[in-house]
Amino acid sequence: MSFLNHNLFKTLFNYSMPMVDMNFFFNPKSIAVIGASSKPGKIGFQVLKSLIDAGYKHPIYPININTKDILGFKTYKNIIDVPNKVDLVLYALPAKYAPNAVEECGKKHVKGMVIISGGFKELNGEGAELERKTVENAKKHGIRIIGPNCIGILNPKNNVDTFFQPRYAMSRPKKGNVSVLTQSGTFGLSMLELLAKEDLGISRFISYGNRADVDELEMLRYLEKDKETKIVALYVESLDDGREFVKLAKKFVLKKPIIVLKGGRTKKGAQAAKSHTGSLAGNDAAFIGAMKQSGVILVDDIDELVDVVKILLMQPLPKGNKVAMVTNGVGPCVVATDEIELSKYLNLANLNEKSIKKLKEYLPEFCVFSNPLDITGSATAEWYKHSLDILKKDNGVDILMPFFVFQDAPLSETIRKLHKIMKEENDLKKPIVCVALGWEFTRRQIETLQKNKIPCIPTPKRAVKALNKVAWYSEYLRKKS
Amino acid sequence: MSFLNHNLFKTLFNYSMPMVDMNFFFNPKSIAVIGASSKPGKIGFQVLKSLIDAGYKHPIYPININTKDILGFKTYKNIIDVPNKVDLVLYALPAKYAPNAVEECGKKHVKGMVIISGGFKELNGEGAELERKTVENAKKHGIRIIGPNCIGILNPKNNVDTFFQPRYAMSRPKKGNVSVLTQSGTFGLSMLELLAKEDLGISRFISYGNRADVDELEMLRYLEKDKETKIVALYVESLDDGREFVKLAKKFVLKKPIIVLKGGRTKKGAQAAKSHTGSLAGNDAAFIGAMKQSGVILVDDIDELVDVVKILLMQPLPKGNKVAMVTNGVGPCVVATDEIELSKYLNLANLNEKSIKKLKEYLPEFCVFSNPLDITGSATAEWYKHSLDILKKDNGVDILMPFFVFQDAPLSETIRKLHKIMKEENDLKKPIVCVALGWEFTRRQIETLQKNKIPCIPTPKRAVKALNKVAWYSEYLRKKS
Repeated sequence: MSFLNHNLFKTLFNYSMPMVDMNFFFNPKSIAVIGASSKPGKIGFQVLKSLIDAGYKHPIYPININTKDILGFKTYKNIIDVPNKVDLVLYALPAKYAPNAVEECGKKHVKGMVIISGGFKELNGEGAELERKTVENAKKHGIRIIGPNCIGILNPKNNVDTFFQPRYAMSRPKKGNVSVLTQSGTFGLSMLELLAKEDLGISRFISYGNRADVDELEMLRYLEKDKETKIVALYVESLDDGREFVKLAKKFVLKKPIIVLKGGRTKKGAQAAKSHTGSLAGNDAAFIGAMKQSGVILVDDIDELVDVVKILLMQPLPKGNKVAMVTNGVGPCVVATDEIELSKYLNLANLNEKSIKKLKEYLPEFCVFSNPLDITGSATAEWYKHSLDILKKDNGVDILMPFFVFQDAPLSETIRKLHKIMKEENDLKKPIVCVALGWEFTRRQIETLQKNKIPCIPTPKRAVKALNKVAWYSEYLRKKS
Repeated sequence: MSFLNHNLFKTLFNYSMPMVDMNFFFNPKSIAVIGASSKPGKIGFQVLKSLIDAGYKHPIYPININTKDILGFKTYKNIIDVPNKVDLVLYALPAKYAPNAVEECGKKHVKGMVIISGGFKELNGEGAELERKTVENAKKHGIRIIGPNCIGILNPKNNVDTFFQPRYAMSRPKKGNVSVLTQSGTFGLSMLELLAKEDLGISRFISYGNRADVDELEMLRYLEKDKETKIVALYVESLDDGREFVKLAKKFVLKKPIIVLKGGRTKKGAQAAKSHTGSLAGNDAAFIGAMKQSGVILVDDIDELVDVVKILLMQPLPKGNKVAMVTNGVGPCVVATDEIELSKYLNLANLNEKSIKKLKEYLPEFCVFSNPLDITGSATAEWYKHSLDILKKDNGVDILMPFFVFQDAPLSETIRKLHKIMKEENDLKKPIVCVALGWEFTRRQIETLQKNKIPCIPTPKRAVKALNKVAWYSEYLRKKS
């Protein structure tokens, strides 16, 4: 496969390596920070501080040649001096010291290292040579490496947080069921903030940067068995072994969905990716083809990734592709109808006559009895309840899509009932995906709905785009079963 | 033109009408509310309350047959009983009473009516007949009508606010330079909330619903002369007179940009639009062609509309299409590079050798000296300053696009300098458009930048899509001049 991007070091050292338990990365019993600094703003200070702020419960050993203690933790001049066992090392010194640091970690029987610093293969020349030496030394001692040129690990369950992003500047999500793998630290932390904003939780987060050792295949194998991981989101610029990825993904997606955002799809994008993480992105058409064949959901932007994650986490998969809309303000439904018509995997449901008759019995005559069903600006929560109840029982409907103008006076009076109603409407296992445009008040209504596992997407186009991907995945699974 | 949607009533009554001054809609010296209600939650209550809450400074006359006063305002049984002149009437009673109410308004020499109620042409049959009669009576008395089936007017400068959306549920933007025309009230209020969220101000807002009388042509002619309107955003499902619109727009866009979001582009979307505002949307390809020919910027979703408005309001137009990026985290730039390559009107700038040399003199060697320029996670505000200073002087650069990872420790320490730097960088009149992914902290940095007229777009794809539209418009104007 042409997007396969072989890494020489991996070929030399890694191919016959048995799959290892990577728990020492995510549940280490002690952590040393090489290059810990006492100066706020320095990466070596912030990494240590994040670990402390996260409430990491096991021993922390800052390593720094000049200081006695940092942030109240006794500091050691060298990792060799640490009196106890060290499971995991976070490395925040310049690249040139890395090969030697790995040697010392080897003597200390360290199991894993997260190399946060850049200055390796992404710079070519000397940097690439430093990366080669670092990996060579690590292999010799059986040390596994995440990175270099990355932001590392977040495991909210065990309070592992290796980020050099201060907490006041970056929100961390709670623990939960999404795992994120990313070549780009920036995309990684952005995903985390957007997931936190939606109150969605994380199981494992791994930013792996230059991917000198541990790669997406090993991590996927680990996440396949991680009971808390129900969905995996990836940002990739290249795959280390495309053939293996496809093989693994095919099996993986039958249990848990994989969502991929791909950078470096064009020639110049691929060049930018090369100087980013030192990996050359491959042929785009081949990549897209391989992902579709493996049941991997491809998304185009970070917004769409979060939307798809939200729908998959909160709702059952649709059993078909026919969408029924109900609304108290039609404009956004007109745009959604256009998008459904232009989409590949969704169709507008034809409501059956029995449903229309029932709707007419309950709702006032000034409603518009079609799809989208317009229950007008006078709509109350009760009108939504009855409408959704009738629509969900319609055999021609697979997906319920209520639109809300929460700003409208009659609805805003009865808003508190809505989330209960929506929850009750879920008994037939037809997915509900809402759309609500607006700002602060609307945002609060959305939060209430989402706390009750009713996803809301902020624009009609985004909602249809995300549902289209979900419908595709569902169809993929039906064909495979 | 096939998207031309002739309205019989307009043909009969309106064609030879001279252009009127519509100031009585936006700066009325007195307002009566027919159907004012004392019951919170009722539309007739809320419309009155919005007017009061907005701080409307002239007399307000609630009309209600059963009550003596509402919200402290003396109530009249009939508009005829009002002792003084009435400029504008807001109508919130059922459709069936409208023709007669118009007759009474005629006797009172009312100049304009905003008919908020639905139940007219959008329902066909009896509703269409009611609309016809209402307009017929209005013409007889020289009363102009906005609506029916709309949310009416917002003019923050003169405190006119006819919305039935309570203030706690819907934020109103401050006064400013964007005017919004919309067939859909829902899209209209959503645009207002999204503009308020970005702290962008409004000159005139008109939701015109079924467009029984005043149409987008008259409103555009009015806005053409409105000194506070610098940009016009429209949501349309159909145009009343496509030929005239094109003629007018061609002239209009040479002075002020027009941005259009179009609903009802597909057959089923057009059907949904028909039952929405009683107007049939026309042929999509013809519509797109006509808009492009007239220099109107077409957008695909409400997000994109706000992004384009923001760039056009805050920044000069680009003189070319070559984009230079600078970043402290490359991932989003890889995706942006892809989008630029896939876009129709943007190109990646080739930095000239002199620029690269100057950048290398100032910045550390671990930076990546290409486009995107990667000044790494160690970047400070000063590094951005020098980089932007060099990039803006490069003749091969038309658009500056800085990406910020505000979450990164070194940058977050010096953030307060950034907006000043960005402002200084604006002296060569090359537009700056930023991208910053994130949540709360990032949002606050964006607010500071935007207060200083430096627009920030929340995702790389959205930023490139919006800039692509701006670049197209700029090219259109260059060709015309």
